[in-house]
Amino acid sequence: MISFENDYNHGAHEKILQRLIETNGHAYSGYGDDEICESAKKKIRRECGCPEAEIFFCVGGTATNQLVIDTVLKDYQGVIAAATGHISTHEAGAIEYSGHKVIELPGADGKLSAIDLEKYMADFYDDGNHEHMVYPGMVYVTYPTEYGTLYTKKELEDIAGICHKYDMTLYLDGARLGYGLMSPEADMTLEDIARITDVFYIGGNKTGALFGEAIVFKAGAPDHYVHLLKKHGALLAKGWTAGLQFDVLFEDGLYYDISRHADIMADCLKTLLKRKGYQLYLENPTNQVFVVLENRQIKELQKQVKISFWEKYDETHTVMRFVTSWATRQEELDMLESLL
Amino acid sequence: MISFENDYNHGAHEKILQRLIETNGHAYSGYGDDEICESAKKKIRRECGCPEAEIFFCVGGTATNQLVIDTVLKDYQGVIAAATGHISTHEAGAIEYSGHKVIELPGADGKLSAIDLEKYMADFYDDGNHEHMVYPGMVYVTYPTEYGTLYTKKELEDIAGICHKYDMTLYLDGARLGYGLMSPEADMTLEDIARITDVFYIGGNKTGALFGEAIVFKAGAPDHYVHLLKKHGALLAKGWTAGLQFDVLFEDGLYYDISRHADIMADCLKTLLKRKGYQLYLENPTNQVFVVLENRQIKELQKQVKISFWEKYDETHTVMRFVTSWATRQEELDMLESLL
Amino acid sequence: MISFENDYNHGAHEKILQRLIETNGHAYSGYGDDEICESAKKKIRRECGCPEAEIFFCVGGTATNQLVIDTVLKDYQGVIAAATGHISTHEAGAIEYSGHKVIELPGADGKLSAIDLEKYMADFYDDGNHEHMVYPGMVYVTYPTEYGTLYTKKELEDIAGICHKYDMTLYLDGARLGYGLMSPEADMTLEDIARITDVFYIGGNKTGALFGEAIVFKAGAPDHYVHLLKKHGALLAKGWTAGLQFDVLFEDGLYYDISRHADIMADCLKTLLKRKGYQLYLENPTNQVFVVLENRQIKELQKQVKISFWEKYDETHTVMRFVTSWATRQEELDMLESLL
Amino acid sequence: MISFENDYNHGAHEKILQRLIETNGHAYSGYGDDEICESAKKKIRRECGCPEAEIFFCVGGTATNQLVIDTVLKDYQGVIAAATGHISTHEAGAIEYSGHKVIELPGADGKLSAIDLEKYMADFYDDGNHEHMVYPGMVYVTYPTEYGTLYTKKELEDIAGICHKYDMTLYLDGARLGYGLMSPEADMTLEDIARITDVFYIGGNKTGALFGEAIVFKAGAPDHYVHLLKKHGALLAKGWTAGLQFDVLFEDGLYYDISRHADIMADCLKTLLKRKGYQLYLENPTNQVFVVLENRQIKELQKQVKISFWEKYDETHTVMRFVTSWATRQEELDMLESLL
Repeated sequence: MISFENDYNHGAHEKILQRLIETNGHAYSGYGDDEICESAKKKIRRECGCPEAEIFFCVGGTATNQLVIDTVLKDYQGVIAAATGHISTHEAGAIEYSGHKVIELPGADGKLSAIDLEKYMADFYDDGNHEHMVYPGMVYVTYPTEYGTLYTKKELEDIAGICHKYDMTLYLDGARLGYGLMSPEADMTLEDIARITDVFYIGGNKTGALFGEAIVFKAGAPDHYVHLLKKHGALLAKGWTAGLQFDVLFEDGLYYDISRHADIMADCLKTLLKRKGYQLYLENPTNQVFVVLENRQIKELQKQVKISFWEKYDETHTVMRFVTSWATRQEELDMLESLL
Repeated sequence: MISFENDYNHGAHEKILQRLIETNGHAYSGYGDDEICESAKKKIRRECGCPEAEIFFCVGGTATNQLVIDTVLKDYQGVIAAATGHISTHEAGAIEYSGHKVIELPGADGKLSAIDLEKYMADFYDDGNHEHMVYPGMVYVTYPTEYGTLYTKKELEDIAGICHKYDMTLYLDGARLGYGLMSPEADMTLEDIARITDVFYIGGNKTGALFGEAIVFKAGAPDHYVHLLKKHGALLAKGWTAGLQFDVLFEDGLYYDISRHADIMADCLKTLLKRKGYQLYLENPTNQVFVVLENRQIKELQKQVKISFWEKYDETHTVMRFVTSWATRQEELDMLESLL
Repeated sequence: MISFENDYNHGAHEKILQRLIETNGHAYSGYGDDEICESAKKKIRRECGCPEAEIFFCVGGTATNQLVIDTVLKDYQGVIAAATGHISTHEAGAIEYSGHKVIELPGADGKLSAIDLEKYMADFYDDGNHEHMVYPGMVYVTYPTEYGTLYTKKELEDIAGICHKYDMTLYLDGARLGYGLMSPEADMTLEDIARITDVFYIGGNKTGALFGEAIVFKAGAPDHYVHLLKKHGALLAKGWTAGLQFDVLFEDGLYYDISRHADIMADCLKTLLKRKGYQLYLENPTNQVFVVLENRQIKELQKQVKISFWEKYDETHTVMRFVTSWATRQEELDMLESLL
Repeated sequence: MISFENDYNHGAHEKILQRLIETNGHAYSGYGDDEICESAKKKIRRECGCPEAEIFFCVGGTATNQLVIDTVLKDYQGVIAAATGHISTHEAGAIEYSGHKVIELPGADGKLSAIDLEKYMADFYDDGNHEHMVYPGMVYVTYPTEYGTLYTKKELEDIAGICHKYDMTLYLDGARLGYGLMSPEADMTLEDIARITDVFYIGGNKTGALFGEAIVFKAGAPDHYVHLLKKHGALLAKGWTAGLQFDVLFEDGLYYDISRHADIMADCLKTLLKRKGYQLYLENPTNQVFVVLENRQIKELQKQVKISFWEKYDETHTVMRFVTSWATRQEELDMLESLL
């Protein structure tokens, strides 16, 4: 059985496990107040070019989104996202559970457009009844998007411009940030991301960590953030175990290297699929590959390959997702090829 | 100055004020546990043909929607509504504040279609990732809709059928229920509404009451509903003052008579506007009239007539809303005519 | 049957009903944006000596407490109250429902003591783990308290001093404010209350209004307060009907006169009870009278007099509450006397 | 520097790290739907004697408490806990954030008494106003308590009896469960805990795991629990990494062995402290040791030993907490001895 099910199906990069072993005999203070977290934060600040950034480590993506959105928004505000955004569809209503509306705009291939956003905002303030509507206080984007696509620097700057015009926070969900930054089509660095957005997170779960996401508040976090983490059930007792992973990932460019590997593997996968005559559902330059498959063939394939449902295509076909990751090996691609 | 601004711009029907005066010398127990509320409930139960219904009186529409939706939904559920539904747009995020997502479907002229609903539900359960999505647990419809349109009995029954198929509650927001039922185009009675839906409310605020909405749970309310009203800040200390208003409204058909009057006034208004060459934004058979006006003319008109913004039409025109109510007088129409 | 059940068992002062009738023919704009509300606010501002105060009208006390506390507190804060405070015990968890802890301090006869408060705050900040505890952000007091007792000006100023020292908001729940201010033992005026506290509400429900409480933010309300009212389900469509009642109550001292009447009636009641040999549960100078009665006698008495349960005293006795109000008449006292 | 700061200051038991390494090359399905979690659940079910139990793995204690309490309680219910309970004091208002009141009862040395509980419940239902109060729907106990004390089997059964009488769920927070069960004074096994309570969690964070708590619903969890975990931000993408740790801990009695070790170390520590003339704040039979120290000495000691603030004792003394854990070594005790 081989697996292209997702990019969180393997444990951790071996260097992370090794570091866990090395540090296992030491005692650290709890809740992220330790020297390892400090070291990781220092590296991330340098990488982002933000010496003033406040950084927090959280276990998973939904908890991170719920926390950041709820703690940054004011009571009268909601968050704008693409209708296909992770918070719009696949987080079980976690944002609404925290009391805030997700204002869904159409989007294309997972991306919000600055034009749609500008129109929405202009209409909002033109609307004579807007005091009875949810005030947009934040724009949520994913990089790469749920469809593996990427904003260009220009596109993201345009969105940021509208955010600033209307006094909204720009928040970037970087669950797969590495796979985006390392794509040959990417025209942004981590420093660009940090410069253009107000707050974002660097995903670890999908990029070599056992768990963990690093939230970066460029210009400082809301007050008492450790308390707020606790209140949301998101404060890690053994905080250093999360910090340690980012400390390793941002040493000698490991985060970038393993991300690049996944993108290369995905590229090989796309080539392979096309060569075999398969139809890609859409083109994208990162590590998720969406393929239109016959339902009958899916059943057959799934006996030997783990892939995941994306969406219904028509009565006899389904869009299935193949994902590569930092852990994908060439042999797995070879084996897949032999099965197709 | 005359006003077609909305249907809640006048106090109360004089019979209600009179009853308030008559009962003012008596002492009643608090929180709706009194003989006047009992009398009103009895009348409503009879009118709905639901001897088992549990009925609660609430002050306003948003509080009612927030309460009913939050208390009926389970923790993992959201409510489906038209994207133009009141809870989707004009309740300041009150539903999300209570922790539940409003799942917005497109709709046409304010109405959800059974076909769209069925498709959404089938797709939902076909989706391999639906355990990570908000479970639809309720369908919210308005009668009449925010655009003054009406579901036919067949349309509502079709929606109810889908609700039952997928184990969802059908909730009808009757903020303007009287104006719907009394429309010449309506093919439903209060008894039909009660039979087809699971829970609904009969609007008082917009139909002759000083305040108040009557929530009707056909087959019994969730446990400890008085407590839940209190927890939501929606329990009236002087509960009888709300019950009293429904007791008057459902005496000798007053609710129906004053609603019919508004619909007739609206009909006259539409005729008048068309005769004067104005373009209606859409046709509907109830008390809200949507007219496309030149922005310049709006400014002029608003010096003498209160009307309300509905939406931008184009750069030089706006859709404005004229509303008649139980309190609208023929003289006001005449005066409007002279101004157009 | 006579009733001393509570102070919200009668409709409204006749002058309020009369004003409702007088204004019934006019059309007003919705949501409190009208000339009557303006007039009422102007009177209240003058009465409070706070020309800058922002004022909002809400229907009931629990909704008001929930709204003010939730909108003033930050996410990491809770509210301190006496363990016997209304929000601690009798609001069905409405404060917690809005996400905030009620931090209960002991209190005596319904009153918080400045000494206890100072100790709690000093201990809180001395506690090495306080980042994991709820930050006290507000102190909630009632005037009069749930036991009918009154803070002296000195006591309230002391509490305010501690609030300022620890950067907390002082919020006064004035559900029965009139009955407090008019007590012969009161040493404060409305102007004092406004000066000493940060935000408070003037109760209408229990003092002659059909419904309504007036929230007074001395130094301005949180942003977008009309929106926040709506989001909490607390925004009145016919806002002027609440404003009107306060406009009447603050005309020619009506609010004070009818409050004083209730206190005098309560005084007569206490004298009467003592003369008849009954034991008061505690002494207080306002309109609630707590009496220790034999359980057997209670049953008998309740056949002709409505009174309310307060708390169990011992196996054979219960503390019952007799309440006078603006509507209490001397005849009712006479009748009670004849029954005791 | 040695550390007795807490029992979560070390990474993980080496067998856990070893298993992480062994499984690191395999791909597992996400969200706990994998064979490792199945294996761990099987072991826990057997250990608890509950073949029907539903088990979920969560990262940390506060998230677990918030999730279990919010998903088990009905909207009108709150949870009873000792005033010193973790949810009452040290979870940053996480329970209230989820909308439920923590009803605090006094307790002694961290323990609730069945007598106090029975009295509270009897008074609650005797109270004529209880419909306006928060309904107790659950009792929360910790084992061991925050003060390291233990309920006897009889005490816990008595509490359970009252829970059943009043239709409340008994929930046991087992953050330090192992240290409790292995205490020489414990008269309960895991099977007893499972039999007496309705739901509980087995702590991993403090007992040798890198992270993780195992929630055990004896008679089945609320519907759609994976969804509810996600909605609370508590669903682990790499669920098997939590399951794996419990799979190791419940192999060959490891969980018990390492817990027993900590209790023995604590016992040595207590003996050592007494021998040196120190005053224990209270006696308890588990791994937390509370000592009254002079403030001056604390400063000195903290240069070489990490210990944690517990509470102020008097102006010149503080209660400090020394904690042993599965990772405490005899050398550390020796070193401490030399420093005292």
